[in-house]
Parts: sequence; structure tokens; C-alpha cells
Amino acid sequence: MPPAERLIVVGGDAAGMSAASQAKRQRPDLEVITFERGWHTSYSACGMPYLVGGLIEDPTNLIVRTPEQFARQGITARVREEVVALDLAVRRVTVRRLEDGSEYQESFDQLVLATGARPLAPELPGREAEGIYGLSVLMDGIRLREAVDREQPRHAVVVGGGYIGLEMVENLLRRGIAVTLVEAADQVMSTLDPDMAALVADELRREGVALYLGEPVQAFATRNGHVTGVVTSQRTVPADLVVLGLGVRPNVELAHQAGIALGMTGAIAVTDRLQTSAEGVWAAGDCVESRHLVSYQPVFIALGTVANKQGRICGINIGGGYARFPGVLGTAITRVGTLEIARTGLQERECRALGIDYVVGTVRGTVRAGYYPDPGWLVIKVLAERGSGRLLGAQIVGTEQAAKRIDVFAVALHAGMSANEFQYLDLSYAPPFGPTWDTPLIAARKAVEQAQAAAYTVTPWPTAPFPRRNSHR
Amino acid sequence: MPPAERLIVVGGDAAGMSAASQAKRQRPDLEVITFERGWHTSYSACGMPYLVGGLIEDPTNLIVRTPEQFARQGITARVREEVVALDLAVRRVTVRRLEDGSEYQESFDQLVLATGARPLAPELPGREAEGIYGLSVLMDGIRLREAVDREQPRHAVVVGGGYIGLEMVENLLRRGIAVTLVEAADQVMSTLDPDMAALVADELRREGVALYLGEPVQAFATRNGHVTGVVTSQRTVPADLVVLGLGVRPNVELAHQAGIALGMTGAIAVTDRLQTSAEGVWAAGDCVESRHLVSYQPVFIALGTVANKQGRICGINIGGGYARFPGVLGTAITRVGTLEIARTGLQERECRALGIDYVVGTVRGTVRAGYYPDPGWLVIKVLAERGSGRLLGAQIVGTEQAAKRIDVFAVALHAGMSANEFQYLDLSYAPPFGPTWDTPLIAARKAVEQAQAAAYTVTPWPTAPFPRRNSHR
Repeated sequence: MPPAERLIVVGGDAAGMSAASQAKRQRPDLEVITFERGWHTSYSACGMPYLVGGLIEDPTNLIVRTPEQFARQGITARVREEVVALDLAVRRVTVRRLEDGSEYQESFDQLVLATGARPLAPELPGREAEGIYGLSVLMDGIRLREAVDREQPRHAVVVGGGYIGLEMVENLLRRGIAVTLVEAADQVMSTLDPDMAALVADELRREGVALYLGEPVQAFATRNGHVTGVVTSQRTVPADLVVLGLGVRPNVELAHQAGIALGMTGAIAVTDRLQTSAEGVWAAGDCVESRHLVSYQPVFIALGTVANKQGRICGINIGGGYARFPGVLGTAITRVGTLEIARTGLQERECRALGIDYVVGTVRGTVRAGYYPDPGWLVIKVLAERGSGRLLGAQIVGTEQAAKRIDVFAVALHAGMSANEFQYLDLSYAPPFGPTWDTPLIAARKAVEQAQAAAYTVTPWPTAPFPRRNSHR
Repeated sequence: MPPAERLIVVGGDAAGMSAASQAKRQRPDLEVITFERGWHTSYSACGMPYLVGGLIEDPTNLIVRTPEQFARQGITARVREEVVALDLAVRRVTVRRLEDGSEYQESFDQLVLATGARPLAPELPGREAEGIYGLSVLMDGIRLREAVDREQPRHAVVVGGGYIGLEMVENLLRRGIAVTLVEAADQVMSTLDPDMAALVADELRREGVALYLGEPVQAFATRNGHVTGVVTSQRTVPADLVVLGLGVRPNVELAHQAGIALGMTGAIAVTDRLQTSAEGVWAAGDCVESRHLVSYQPVFIALGTVANKQGRICGINIGGGYARFPGVLGTAITRVGTLEIARTGLQERECRALGIDYVVGTVRGTVRAGYYPDPGWLVIKVLAERGSGRLLGAQIVGTEQAAKRIDVFAVALHAGMSANEFQYLDLSYAPPFGPTWDTPLIAARKAVEQAQAAAYTVTPWPTAPFPRRNSHR
């Protein structure tokens, strides 16, 4: 029997471990070694806010599979070991043991880069003070949870009004902590249009959150090495706990040093089968760029769902199968208090940057039939292309059970459906689940009416379109 | 100015009044007269079970628009007047005033038949006894609600385990009444496959419902003109209240007598623009047959969503616009107690009757992330065509927030999507809303695996396919 081929996977969370598992399942002869610089493999990073909030008691519940469990699958999963160099010529990685700094080398036949993303962390005065937390690996969540349990902070400041920021707001409120949200932009949720984001801001204020928009953080006030406040362009907000949620950038240093091609977003460029520019080197998850299914442009969108799908597809291909990652829509959903938020596809800003002329259909409806007890409310905004009526994107803000309706738009965007076609979809209806004309259909109808009205209007020449970096969670 | 053209609409609920409103909106010069044999216009028939259950206090809340409101739109809406004859040669209808039996005639230029459906009501001994109710027009719901309020029944029997039957079970239980459900078939919910229907039967029994399957009703026991029991093939079930929910048939007598073509399902045949075989005569709602978007066969599926859409499309076309009804999937959703149920597309029985060879993907998942408090459960079953992998249908049974996920399948069926394409859809994810791999995606993946496994198996020659009548709520 010839010596087994060896697959090395760099990164031990969603993308990496999905790839490892799938490849091993299809090719049991493959030797598979995975490296993770954190403490845990294959965990739900998205669960960390709820761990901090106490909705989830035990952090081990967030772990899908431990190194011991991977060992039983025949996968060698090493943690606290970081791959610090990649030599493609001799097909070898250099690994550093983070506990003692010692290094060793391993050779490979096939390699998966699943190095994920790094949090954007500003180099601001006071940044190293105690009491300032980010949420990158699971250990960050565990430490933050322990800090909240131990120190019983009274005033928290969340910096950054994206998904993680909002989820931290909800969960810190749940712990009885007064919360201030500071955001450099003039709206929360940059992936929503300003009108929809305003609904979210209203709700945050209703929930008692102090909200400072358009205030970039300039420094952290400290005393005795512990944070005491967040200094913005306008004020100093007292804080005994600070959580940073400023977005992420792809972690591509290893790939870049090895000469592997990056895409125009700065993330690793891959084929639909998740191959990089180097033979036998694959990449998946938050470190790669994807094709946007509406704009066809390369985008960098770091989301757990995408990482899982890409990891699986990567593993199928390594295992000798055939699978193609179709692309992304940037579909995302979150909740803050009793408010639900979701979005998919392009937003207005993106359309303008791409030179796409669009119409808007916005409608306010109910989550259940209007006459049903506690009917709830939701606002749905739909963008459709002028002329063609092709759906471009959708956004939803509303009460419980509102946001998951975004998925009907995601399917329609995948299918390249027009608003005209969408408005007559045979969606489900019964009084506990919505009005007879479900609100997504009405929103599409509004867009159709706008598209018809706009068909012969004259608009200014578009400004030069230029694809832009686009970063979601 | 020439005399206005006159539009007459026969039937004053969803389809008819939608057509009337839309036509009038587009052509304000049109004279519009509508006739309804019931007491109310434009109400939510689907809300009646919840009226009986007391979730909705005031029946007028179920009325979308009254004749007085229509009058302000310039529409003459007559109630308790039944169109009893249609003369196409002279373009005139004969109308009977139901209060006194007198008749008169009205001429028309354009006509909409929105005569709806009639409940299937068996001519069984005792059928005319007091205490036996159907739910056809709103007044039926009002009378049933009053009877429950007044007579405080203790033992109710619901005959028929379809949507209306299940919704009545829930709402009679809500009123503190012991409920027995009797169904002639050997499963509840004929629009679900037997394995999925069994999950519903389990839940009914858990809720304390006495469930007798495979027991056709043969008679009603009575005393002093009031019902005292339901006699099945196996037993007599004591009852002081009986609710019939046995399905409906299209109400086509008027059309048929006038020589308007019926389709092979027995409902009125229409073009995509909702034209009948007679010039200037349109039809919409529960009295027409539609094209099934998966099988391409004509089907009779009586649902409020379809009636609303067809009414609107009919009105657009009468008003000089252009709109086409694409077809139906039989998407439906309901709830019984804490259990949610939904379905779309073809079920196994339909596939077999059509000679379509299919594979099945069934998966049990959670409604929220598995580690999240109270994650709930749901079972999703997906049918996909052997070979092509084209999605054929889906069914969902589960806890709160499970069933509305059916809509992603409905959109995919509209788009003719394959299970392979579906499994990698960019659907939304966050821990309060589902697992990272949302259960619909996993169900599709299971179907893909089955399709691959079945690709080269040999199956018996199909039996001669023959389109069958297909009746949903």
C-alpha cells in the first residue's frame, strides 16, 4: 500500500473542520491534520453573545466537536498551534506551539487555508487596558462571560453598531447592565439602508440604550490599568466594560506570503470549487472572497453560514467529488431585544456604487392577520432594477417572527426572479401566520408599481461605477 | 358622454370584491355591481375558527370592507341577493332577493364569476338536526360562535381532518370542550404524506383529542331534533355539537347552465388572464381550476390566497391592464395547538399518480440553534425528481416558528430549482432563528444524496399516469 496522502487544514473552526470532516468521510485513506491557534475546534462563534447574556449557561454547549471527537473520526486536530509559514515549493508548513513558542514542520500533499478573519481593532490610546473585550475566538466569549459574572459591571459601552454590536447590546441589557452604543457612522447596521436602520435606532433608544451615532472612538480612558471610559469625538462615556464589534478583515498573511493570489477585496481568490492559485491548495470561509449573486462582483462577506458551506464543498472536492460554491447574497439576520432585523442582496448604497438604477417598494404590515390577537408589525423594503424589475435586495425590520421571512427573498434572488413574478408567488397563509397577501408580496408589488412609473423617467447619467469593498459580519 | 359600461360580479368575497375594486380603480368610469347571497362582503373566511375559539371577539373584525365602504369607492355591493340565471345571448343575469324570493334582472357588459365553492355535505340520516354546523359563509361562523357561547357544549365531534377540521379542533379545545375528530381516510391532512400526517395525529392525541381514523360517518343520532351523536362505521360518538369540515367542490352551476366550459377537474376553465370560454366573462377564486406549477396539470385548489390573487389579476385585465396568473403550488399552512403544519407542491401520492419517479429527503432539526434555550423541533420532508433532482414538493411539521419556512420551498418550486441548487442557498442564520445549516437546506441535501444513490437503480415500469382531481382547502 502506498503511503497515505496527507491533508493539512489551517484553521479549526467552521470552514476548516467542515472541509476536514467531509474529505475524510469520502477518502478514509487520507491522513488529515488540522491546526488551530485558539483553544477550541468547531464551535459556534455566533453563540458567544448569548453565552455572555446567560441564555447559554455552559460554553461547551457551543462546541460542535472537540479534538477528541475528531480523533475518533481519524482526524488529528491540534489546538494552540499556529501555522506561521507556508512553503509551497517543498509543500511544508511551519507550526508554532503557542504554549512554549517552539516550532516544528509538517509536510502536506493538499492544504486548506481556513484562516478566518481578524477583528478590526483600532490602535487607540488605552486599547490595552483591562475591561476591553473583542469577540473573535470562543475563549474571548468565555473570558467576557467570566468578567461579567465576576465584576458585575454597571456601565458597558459597545463600540460598533453591526450584528455583533447589537447582539452584545441585547445580552448586556439582559444582564442588567446599562448600555451605551457608540458608532462612527451616522447609522447603526451599515448593511441596512438609513431608513431601515432608523427603525433599529428607535428601538434601541426605546430599550433604554444610550446611542451615539457619528462619533468615532478616539481613545479609552483608564485608571490603574482598567478602562473607565470611552472617548469619542464628542464626549467621554463612562464605562467599566467595553466590547468592540468593529467588523473584520480577512486573515490572509500566510497565503500572501506564500504568493497565493488575493482578490480585489483583499481576501483569497478562489475558483467555485474553492481552489486557490496554488495547485493543491484550497481555501474556505472568512479568509476568501466570494461572488455576489446579484452584482456578480467579488465581495468579502464573513458569515458562519458561508464558512460551513464552503468548508463542505472544499471537502467534497478534495475527497474526489464535485461541488461548486454558487456565491453569496449577504443574507443576514439578527435580533435586538424584541426587534428582529434581516437583509439580503444589494442595498441602495451598493446599487449606486455599481451604477444600477433601482426602484424601492416599502410597506408596513403585520406578522399575523391584522384582526388576530397581537398581530405584530414589520416593515419590508424591496429594491428592484429599473426596467427589468429584477429583484436586487430586501430588508426587514419588525417584531417576533418577522425577520426569517427574508429567506423568501434570498431564494428569489438566487433564481434571478423579478418583482413582477415575485408578487404572485404561492406563499403560505393562515391567520396565525400573516395576512392573506403576505407582506413580502405587497412589498414586491409596490416595487412593480414604482418600476412601471419609473420606466420612462429620465435620470442623470450614472457616475462611474466601481465595485467597492463590502464587509459584513 | 356614452353610457358607462357595466361590470357585474357574482360573489362578494375575496375573488369577487378584489376584482371589483381593482377594475374600478383602473377604470373609474365603469359601473360596478356585485351580488352576494351571504350577509357580508369581503371577509376572512379563514378567521372563522378563531372567532369560534374566542381569539377574535368581534366578527366584524373579520370583515375587510362592508357594502357601505364599497359604496364610497363607487361600487354597488348587494348582499342576500343571489344570481340564479345567466343569459349570455342578451348579456343579462337574473337575481333573486333571498329575503322575499322576488327576482329581477340586470344587464352587463363584462361579468366576473366568483361563485366560490360549496362545502361537501353528505346527505346522511339526521343531517338536518340542530347542533350540526358547517363553515361556509361568515354567518356560519357567527352562528357557531353564538351556539358555543349559548349552549356551552361539552362534547364536540369534528368530522373531517383537513385544515378546517384541525383548526376547529384547536379552537374547540380552547373553549374547554372535549373534542373527537372523525375522519374517513386512514390519516388526517390528506395533503400530507402518511408519515408526516402521523406526526400530526400523535400531537392531536397528546392534546387529548379522541381520534378515529378510517371511520366514515354514516348517520347522526338525534333526540328532539338536536344532534346527540355521530354514527361511524365502528361506533357512535356522543356529541352535543358537530362541526363538518369535509372539503369543498367548485360552485359552477351558473357557469355550466350558461354553457361556459368547465375544465377536467369540474371547475371553470380559464386562461391565465382569467377569461372563461365566453367573451367578456371572467372567473376567479374557488370556482376556477388552476395550473399546478410542478405537474403542469389542471388542479382544483380552493384557497383564500389564490382567490385574492386571481381577483386582483382579473380586475387588472378588466381595467385594461395586463396581468397573468402564473399557477398554484397548493402551498398551505395551519396550526393545531402548539403544532405547526405546512406543505407545498406535490406529495408522494400525486407523484405516483402522475408517473413521476421521486426521491425523499427527510430530516429532523431544531427551530433555533440546538444549544439555544427551548430550541423546538421540526421535521422537513422534501421530494425531488429522480435523475433531474428537480424539487417537487415539501412538507413541514414542528413547533412554533417551524411551518412558515415552507415558503422557501414555494419560491424554489416557482423557480424550478433543483435540490442540488437549493442545498447551498444563502439563507439567513443567527442562533435565535435556526442552526447554521438551516433544516430546509439539510432536507434538500438528503434528497440530493438519495437522488445520487437512485440514479442507476432500476424501478418497475410506471403504471399509467392519469391526472386526478386534487382538492385542498
